[in-house]
Amino acid sequence: MRATLLHQAGDVRVADVADPKIQRPTDAVVRIVLGCICGSDLWPYKSQPVTDTPRQMGHEFIGVVEETGTEVRDLKAGDVVVAPFTYSDGTCESCREGLQTSCEHGGPWGVGGVDGGQGQATRVPYADGTLVKLPVGEDSELLPDLLTLSDVLCTGYHAARTAGVRAGETVTVIGDGAVGLSAVIAAKLLGAERIVLMGRHTARTDLGREFGATDVVAARGEEGVAAVRELTGGRGAHRVLECVGLKDALVQAAGVVRDGGTISRVGAPQYAEVPLAFPEFLRNITLTGGVAPARAYIGELMPHILDGRIRPGRVFDRTVPLEQVAEGYRLMNDREALKVIVRP
Amino acid sequence: MRATLLHQAGDVRVADVADPKIQRPTDAVVRIVLGCICGSDLWPYKSQPVTDTPRQMGHEFIGVVEETGTEVRDLKAGDVVVAPFTYSDGTCESCREGLQTSCEHGGPWGVGGVDGGQGQATRVPYADGTLVKLPVGEDSELLPDLLTLSDVLCTGYHAARTAGVRAGETVTVIGDGAVGLSAVIAAKLLGAERIVLMGRHTARTDLGREFGATDVVAARGEEGVAAVRELTGGRGAHRVLECVGLKDALVQAAGVVRDGGTISRVGAPQYAEVPLAFPEFLRNITLTGGVAPARAYIGELMPHILDGRIRPGRVFDRTVPLEQVAEGYRLMNDREALKVIVRP
Repeated sequence: MRATLLHQAGDVRVADVADPKIQRPTDAVVRIVLGCICGSDLWPYKSQPVTDTPRQMGHEFIGVVEETGTEVRDLKAGDVVVAPFTYSDGTCESCREGLQTSCEHGGPWGVGGVDGGQGQATRVPYADGTLVKLPVGEDSELLPDLLTLSDVLCTGYHAARTAGVRAGETVTVIGDGAVGLSAVIAAKLLGAERIVLMGRHTARTDLGREFGATDVVAARGEEGVAAVRELTGGRGAHRVLECVGLKDALVQAAGVVRDGGTISRVGAPQYAEVPLAFPEFLRNITLTGGVAPARAYIGELMPHILDGRIRPGRVFDRTVPLEQVAEGYRLMNDREALKVIVRP
Repeated sequence: MRATLLHQAGDVRVADVADPKIQRPTDAVVRIVLGCICGSDLWPYKSQPVTDTPRQMGHEFIGVVEETGTEVRDLKAGDVVVAPFTYSDGTCESCREGLQTSCEHGGPWGVGGVDGGQGQATRVPYADGTLVKLPVGEDSELLPDLLTLSDVLCTGYHAARTAGVRAGETVTVIGDGAVGLSAVIAAKLLGAERIVLMGRHTARTDLGREFGATDVVAARGEEGVAAVRELTGGRGAHRVLECVGLKDALVQAAGVVRDGGTISRVGAPQYAEVPLAFPEFLRNITLTGGVAPARAYIGELMPHILDGRIRPGRVFDRTVPLEQVAEGYRLMNDREALKVIVRP
C-alpha cells in the first residue's frame, strides 16, 4: 500500500510499504477513508534529521474496518470508525479512568509495526479499546467534522474540561490554530459567557468568531495582556486555554489569567520549564491540561456533530490527494492552509 | 510596647515600638495573647541584609480586642480572636470568592504601619474582614490548637483542598515541617485512605503517623520516588502535597504523582521556574496550590478543633517568652524545635 514517510526535515514522500495484516487477536485492519495533517506533524517536519528508517506519518483518520482479529468483539468488517490519535487497550486502570493516553499497552501511530494515519490502511492494535464506530456511511458529508474527533476537537475540549470551564465564565484562548479554534467551540459548549481569542491571523480569528469567540485580541506579549485585562475589567479570565506550546504563550497565559484562575495547556511543550514561580504562587494560579485522551471524549462530542450543533470540520480549508501530501505539508508549514485533509 | 524586629540575618531583637492606635474606622487594636514563629520567618532570618528600618516580625496570633474603629460591626472589646496570616477587607470580589490573599486592600503583617504578630499588640486593618472570633477564653487550653488556624493548619488544608483530595485516595505529603504535618491532618479530614509522609526527622514523622500518615518514607530523590511507587503498586499517588518550596521537592512530587494526578504546592517557592515540561504534559499532571487564603478556611476548620477531632497544636514543641524570641528563632533554625510559641 501507499503511505506517507518523513525522510528528514522538509522531505515527506509517499511510498510503497507492506500491507497491514492482523498480527494479534485484538487487532483490526482498517482501510483509511480520510486522514489529515496535524500542527504537531510540523514539528518533525521542521526538525527531523535525515534517517534510513523513515517514520510513517499521520495520527488522525476515519476508515472502514476490513478485517478483525478473533478477540475483537465490538467491531466487524464494514464498520466506519474514527481513531483517536493514540491507540489504547481500553481495559487497564488508566483507560478505565478515562486517561487512555497513559494506557499501559497504548502508543502512537506510525512506529513499532503500527502504520500511520496518512496512508491507505493501517493495523489498529486493541481495536475495541481504540476505535469508535461512527453511525454514518463512508460517503457522509459529516466526515470532515467527525475527523476532528481524532485530535483537534478533543484536544480543545480537553483544555476546556481540565480548566474547569463553567457556565458564565470568561475564557481566554491563546492560539488561532485548529486546536485553538476547537477550544473556542469547547468553551462555548461548556457555557462560557465570554470567549476572548488571542490570534493574529484574521481568516482564522474570523472563523473563531463564528465558532463562538466574543472578542479577538491580535496583540501579543504585554500589549496583548493589557488588552485582555481591559476587556475583563482589570481582573483577567477565569480560565486560559493555552493552545500553542511555546514559553511566550505560557507567560501570556499567566498575564491574562485572574487570581485563583486556571491555565490549561494543550499545546505540546516546546519549553524545558514552566515560568510559573513566586508571583503565580501568590496569585494561586493552577496549571493543568496535557496530552488529550481523545478516546475519552469522542462519545460525548460526537452527538453535537451529528445534530449539527457544532461544525468543527470547518477548520479544514484544503484537501490534497495522498500522492500530493507533500504539498499539504508545505501549505500548512507556510501557513497558507489552516489544516489539510489527506484523501487516500 | 515590645515587638520583635529583624535587623539582619541572624539578628532578631525585642525592642520598644510605638503602641498601636486606631487609624481608620475599620481598624481594631488587639492585645496579643499568643504568637508563634513560622518556617517562612526563617527565610528572612537566614538572608535579610542589614537594615536601618527593621521589620516587625510575625504573622500568626491570637489576641483580645482592645478597641475598635467606628465602622467595625462584628467585633467588640474583649472578644478573643484569631488572625489569618494576611489581612483582608472581606468585601472585594476576591474576598467574596474566598481568595482573601488576593484582596485588593489586603496585605502582610509587619509593614506599612501595621504591626507584626510577635509582639504585645497590633493594629488590625479591616478588622471585620480579617479577624475571626473564637468561642473560648484567653486562658483556654485549646489556644495552641486554635493558633494553627492563623497559618499552618489552613496552609496544609489549602494543599489538600486545591489538590482535590477525595475519600479513598492515596495522598503523598512531601515535607515533615509543621505545614507538612498539617497537610497530613487535612488529607485525613478529607477522607484519604492512604497518606504517605515523606520526611527524614523521626520525631516529626512519628507525629505525622499520629496525625494520620499510614506510611513514612525517609528516602529522598530517586530512592524516595521508588519507595512511594512501590507502596502504591507502581502507579503513584493521586494527590501530592508539596510542603517544602524547593525545586527538588517539586521534582520528587512529579516522580511520585500518578498519571492524571495533581501536585499542590504550598511551600513558598525558592525556585524561578517549575520543572514540569514535556514528560509531565504527556502524563497530564496538574500543578495547583499557592499561598493559602487562611481566612476562607478558619470557620470550616475551627469546629474540628473545638470538638477535639484534630489536635494540630501538637506541632508546637517549644514555648518562649517574647523577650527570648531570638532563642526561639535559633531553635527553629537549628531544627532543635519544630515550631515555637511566643508568649508576650
